[in-house]
Amino acid sequence: MTGNREEFTVTPWEVRGEVNYERLVVEFGLTPLNKDLYERLTRLAGDTHKLLRRGVFFAHRDLDWLLDKYERGEMFYLYTGRGPSGHTHLGHMVPWFLTKWLQDRFGAKLYFQMTDDEKFLFKPELTLEKTRKYALDNALDVIALGFDPDKTKIFLDTDYIGFLYKIALQFAKKITFSTVRATFGLTESSNIGQIFFTSIQAAPAFIESIITGKNVPCLIPLAVDQDPHFRLARDVAPKLGFYKPAILHSKFLPSLSGGGKMSSSEAMSAIFTTDSPEEVRKKIWNAFTGGRPTIAEQREKGGNPDICPVFHYYAFIFEEDDRALGERRKRCLSGDLLCGECKEDLIKRVTNFLKEHQRKRERARDIVDKFLLRGEQTF
Amino acid sequence: MTGNREEFTVTPWEVRGEVNYERLVVEFGLTPLNKDLYERLTRLAGDTHKLLRRGVFFAHRDLDWLLDKYERGEMFYLYTGRGPSGHTHLGHMVPWFLTKWLQDRFGAKLYFQMTDDEKFLFKPELTLEKTRKYALDNALDVIALGFDPDKTKIFLDTDYIGFLYKIALQFAKKITFSTVRATFGLTESSNIGQIFFTSIQAAPAFIESIITGKNVPCLIPLAVDQDPHFRLARDVAPKLGFYKPAILHSKFLPSLSGGGKMSSSEAMSAIFTTDSPEEVRKKIWNAFTGGRPTIAEQREKGGNPDICPVFHYYAFIFEEDDRALGERRKRCLSGDLLCGECKEDLIKRVTNFLKEHQRKRERARDIVDKFLLRGEQTF
Repeated sequence: MTGNREEFTVTPWEVRGEVNYERLVVEFGLTPLNKDLYERLTRLAGDTHKLLRRGVFFAHRDLDWLLDKYERGEMFYLYTGRGPSGHTHLGHMVPWFLTKWLQDRFGAKLYFQMTDDEKFLFKPELTLEKTRKYALDNALDVIALGFDPDKTKIFLDTDYIGFLYKIALQFAKKITFSTVRATFGLTESSNIGQIFFTSIQAAPAFIESIITGKNVPCLIPLAVDQDPHFRLARDVAPKLGFYKPAILHSKFLPSLSGGGKMSSSEAMSAIFTTDSPEEVRKKIWNAFTGGRPTIAEQREKGGNPDICPVFHYYAFIFEEDDRALGERRKRCLSGDLLCGECKEDLIKRVTNFLKEHQRKRERARDIVDKFLLRGEQTF
Repeated sequence: MTGNREEFTVTPWEVRGEVNYERLVVEFGLTPLNKDLYERLTRLAGDTHKLLRRGVFFAHRDLDWLLDKYERGEMFYLYTGRGPSGHTHLGHMVPWFLTKWLQDRFGAKLYFQMTDDEKFLFKPELTLEKTRKYALDNALDVIALGFDPDKTKIFLDTDYIGFLYKIALQFAKKITFSTVRATFGLTESSNIGQIFFTSIQAAPAFIESIITGKNVPCLIPLAVDQDPHFRLARDVAPKLGFYKPAILHSKFLPSLSGGGKMSSSEAMSAIFTTDSPEEVRKKIWNAFTGGRPTIAEQREKGGNPDICPVFHYYAFIFEEDDRALGERRKRCLSGDLLCGECKEDLIKRVTNFLKEHQRKRERARDIVDKFLLRGEQTF
C-alpha cells in the first residue's frame, strides 16, 4: 500500500514506513473498534484492558457478531500465532497480552500457531532446522505469559501438518493464483510454497469446528499486517460451510529507531525477551524520542510523545495506570519531563519485566511438551 | 503439446489425441531406450520383460547412470504411484507390472504414492473422502499384483504428509509460479493447491536419501504423462544435494474406443479391475479395431494391428510369447485372423486374468494395513 506523501507498505511479510492506520482501515476494509463495541466487550469481560482502552487494538471484523453468539451461549475459541524467524521481541507479544486477557476473562481455548514453514519459505537464509529452533524458543515466551495449560495448545506447522493439511487443501481448492497475487502482492517469481502458504495459516481458524463437528466461532487477535490471510479465509469459509473467523487488529509497537514496526532483523530497533539488562539499557538510551535537539529547547517547547517510541512502550506495555500515563504525557508536552528521566524509568521497568519473564521462560522448558500438538492430536 | 496435422496433448492431467511418441521424446527431452541399454538392463536383471522387449517402455532419463551406480554396489529403490480418481483400469497397471518385475529381479524397495490430495485439487467434483476411498481401493490392486510385503510401502499423501511436507517445502522454495506455468500449463486461474502440488509428488524421490542420511538412487517407472513433475524434481535435486531420480517412461495402453489413452471417465474405453465378465465381454465386443468394414474386404486386404487397441492389449499384457504375438500379427495382416476370433480370445484371457486378480484383490484386504504408511513412519 503506497500513497503520495506518506508512503507505507503493510503486508504479512513487510511493514515499511510510517503506518497510517486510518488509511489502513479504509484500504483493508476493516471496521474501527468504536466506543459502543469497546464498552460491550468490557461489560461482558467484567473488566477492561489497556490495549483496548488506549486504542492499540483499533479495528476488527465481526467482533459484534462473535459477541452476539457468545451472549446466546455459543462459546468462541482464540487463535493467534507467530512467524518464528528469530527471538521474540516485545512487539510480538502485544497481541499475546490481549489474547491472554481474553482467555482469562472468557475461559476460551487457544490455538497458537508457529509458522515455521512460512518463515522457511519467505526468508532465503533460513533452514527448517532454524525455524524449528526459533519456534520452540518462542514457545517459551508464550508459555511464560501464563496461558492456561489446560486450555492452550501450541503447534509448529511442520509438526501439526498431519491435521492441518486436509483443512488447508479445502481452502487451497477455492483460492487462485490471481487472488493471492492481488491479496499479498505475490508475483510470478514467488515460490510455489509461498503461494500455497495462506491455506496453512487459514486452517486453525476452523479446527474446533472440524473437531466438534459443529460450527464454533473463532476470534483471532493479531497485528494488522496479518489481516490479508484472514480476509481470504473469511471469503472462503462460507463456501465450505464454516463461520467466518472474527478478527481483532492491533497497531505495531514502534521501532526504537523511530518509524515503522520493530524488526527482528534490526537488533537495535527492538527489545528481545532474551536481552540482558546491559542490552536493554543500551537500546533504550540510543532510542529515537519525541524530544528536542537541546535541553533548553525542550524545556521551552516541550516534547512530542505522539511520535516517541519510548512513550509508546509505556502506553502499550509498561504503564498500567491511565492517570500516570496521562501525567507522563502532560509532563513531556510541557517540557517538564526530559528524555533522560523518561528513558531511565523505562529501563527500570523493562529490566524488571524481563528479569521475571526470563525466569518464567526457563521454567517453561519443563512444561513445554504439555502445550505442543503433533501429528493428528487434538485437545 | 499441439502440432499441425496430428494434434495431441500430454500433461499429468490431460492426455488427448493420437500421441506421437517420437515427437514427445524430442519435446520432453527424453532419451530413447536403445538396444544397448535394453541389453544391459536385461543382463543385470538376468531376464527380460515383454514391456521392455516390445518398446512399451520407450524412453528414460539417467537409467544408464542408475545402472552404473548399481554395478558399483549402490542399490536403488523404486517409486511409482497412482492418482486415485476412480477404480483401477488395466492401463494404470502397465507401469506397475514393470515395477513388480524390477522389484523381483533387483530386490528393490518400493514406495507407492497415492495422490489423493492431487485428485481432490484437480477434479472439481471429488471430495477428500472420495479420493481416500479410491486410494484404499486402488491399493488392493497394487497388492494383488504380488509386490513383496517386506519391501513395499503404500501411502496416501494426506496420511503421510507428516513425513512428506518438510521435503516438499524444500522443493517448493526452489520452484516459482513461472516455472510451474511453463512446465504444466497451469494458469493464473489455477488454484494454489494445484500450483504447490508438484512438490508433494517430488518428495518420495528423496525419501530413502533422507532416511538413510546418504544419497540413494531412485528409479521411477511411470506413464510418460507424469514426466513433467520429475523434470522439475530433477532440476531442483542437485540444489538440495540429492541425486536426480532416474525415470523409465511407458506408452499408454490405447483406449478401446480408439485413439488416445484409456480414461477412467469413459467407462467403455477401459477395462477396470472390478469389471464383471459380462462387462468385459461387452467392452471388448464394442471395441474399435484395425479391421475392415466387411469380412470380405478383411479377407482380401487384411487388418491393421498397429492401430488396433485389441492387438495392443495382447502386446502390452495378454500375450507373453513373442512368437505367438508375431503369429497373431501376421494372421491379422494377411486377413486370416478376423476381429471376432481375436476379440473372443482376448475376452477369455482378460476374464481369466480378472477372475484371479479379483480373488487376490479380496485377499489383499486382510494385509493392506501392513503396506500402509502413516504420520512419520518409515520402512
